[in-house]
Amino acid sequence: MFEQLGLIGCGLMGGSFALALRRAGLVKRVVGYSKSPSTTERARQLGVIDVEAPSALLAVSGADIVLLAVPVSATESTLKAIRHLVRPDMLLMDVGSTKRDVVDAARRVLRDQVGTFVPCHPITGKENAGVEHAASDLYTDRQVIITPIERTLVAQLKRAEQVWQAIGSRVLKMSPDAHDAAYAAVSHLPHVLAYGLVTSIHEQPQGQEFLSLAGPGFRDFTRIAASDPAVWRDILLANRTELLAQSRQFRDALARFEKLIEEGNAHELEGLIRAASEIRARWRMGQRLED
Amino acid sequence: MFEQLGLIGCGLMGGSFALALRRAGLVKRVVGYSKSPSTTERARQLGVIDVEAPSALLAVSGADIVLLAVPVSATESTLKAIRHLVRPDMLLMDVGSTKRDVVDAARRVLRDQVGTFVPCHPITGKENAGVEHAASDLYTDRQVIITPIERTLVAQLKRAEQVWQAIGSRVLKMSPDAHDAAYAAVSHLPHVLAYGLVTSIHEQPQGQEFLSLAGPGFRDFTRIAASDPAVWRDILLANRTELLAQSRQFRDALARFEKLIEEGNAHELEGLIRAASEIRARWRMGQRLED
Repeated sequence: MFEQLGLIGCGLMGGSFALALRRAGLVKRVVGYSKSPSTTERARQLGVIDVEAPSALLAVSGADIVLLAVPVSATESTLKAIRHLVRPDMLLMDVGSTKRDVVDAARRVLRDQVGTFVPCHPITGKENAGVEHAASDLYTDRQVIITPIERTLVAQLKRAEQVWQAIGSRVLKMSPDAHDAAYAAVSHLPHVLAYGLVTSIHEQPQGQEFLSLAGPGFRDFTRIAASDPAVWRDILLANRTELLAQSRQFRDALARFEKLIEEGNAHELEGLIRAASEIRARWRMGQRLED
Repeated sequence: MFEQLGLIGCGLMGGSFALALRRAGLVKRVVGYSKSPSTTERARQLGVIDVEAPSALLAVSGADIVLLAVPVSATESTLKAIRHLVRPDMLLMDVGSTKRDVVDAARRVLRDQVGTFVPCHPITGKENAGVEHAASDLYTDRQVIITPIERTLVAQLKRAEQVWQAIGSRVLKMSPDAHDAAYAAVSHLPHVLAYGLVTSIHEQPQGQEFLSLAGPGFRDFTRIAASDPAVWRDILLANRTELLAQSRQFRDALARFEKLIEEGNAHELEGLIRAASEIRARWRMGQRLED
């Protein structure tokens, strides 16, 4: 049981974390801060936080658990704003979608205190950002990737695992680099492809007409293209090396499909499609495929 | 009210059409044929069809409404198999995802009787093919594109519209070419991109690991990659010219994203993402975006 959650960033991710902690009876008081005062006010009106803090530092004051739920590019400045109140007995976590850059920022800013910080990435989200869409079950049955470094304190790491498990998440641990490589492939690149498809269609003279004809396949394929632009700009830039490597791999695969289609090579095209289709049909979220 | 539906192809699309007609009280008897006898038998066991026909021709015998629900590459051979029983007072439709090739096949095979044939494409589907997944509401609230040619009989066209509307679909009419251009962009290319992404990830040494870490964004983005391989092989080949043109447009858009990411151009990258995100957030299936 925590006395006070200091929530920095009262949007979808932060707000849902506060609601989940409350529902699990894990926190007595939530003090929240968002860059935009109207967001903080809205979070209080919705009962997501109890008290509005006028600064990140004041949200942390008196907190024994702190969550950074800000765009990844704001991690460093946020850590700077709060570093004087970071104590070794405090559980300090983030929810950023990239981890190499977040860990680097934490090292630079927190220095000797970096062991207090536990870098986390919950594999969840919604295309609708904002505290209005926060839900206490956003993290239920979802994976949370924790990417400790050598200096991460064992006690904080353990408490972080316990908190996520207590709100229904499954915890996996890996290195920041392994994390960023994996999510470049399965999350960041798909976002770029979805943005790219919508852009490509929209810019054609008949784009509006085409879009009005699209069905449920398009709906699901492009759902992630509605995600928050500032958040995703940051993620794509923060993980650019891995992302561009994945994009090159993808282009090669696309070129093979195009070549077979152009040649009318039905046999090999079906083989490629069948392999992909079988992998996807057997795929289950959070599970390893059997070979 | 029809006396008898001759159903050629008792899979997801065909089976669902039979169930929908029944539910709407529009048909007395369904005689079904599938290339695989076990599928036809299964369709009868599930109550999707009343009678198993041993051939396409015998499924059409005595029918006043006939639906071809076969992969598009089988359209021509199927029409050849049944052409001796095609009569001007019969309503003959298909549900193929490409229309130029289907219309060309109908012209070649049906000749003077081509006016009887009404080319249709319902914008619906599921990643799980097969009669087991047939549902009487698959067509409810979905668009059905009808692509008549000059020779299509007005009476048949009108009856086709009425049938789809009676089972809850919204009918749109356009030329086969306009249809194929639009669906290359909003359906066929997304399938290739989804297949391409799964292929690209799976072929990497850490592919299995990466896939086990994927979350709900990946799930929805790749849902269409589980679609039936033979059906989609045919669609991609049948509409290859339009599809490859769309793929080139898409590659250009992707290259612009890559360039901005590589350069770290946050401002322009956010602009591109924001434009795509706003379009997608405002998009509603079956509606035109307001400008």
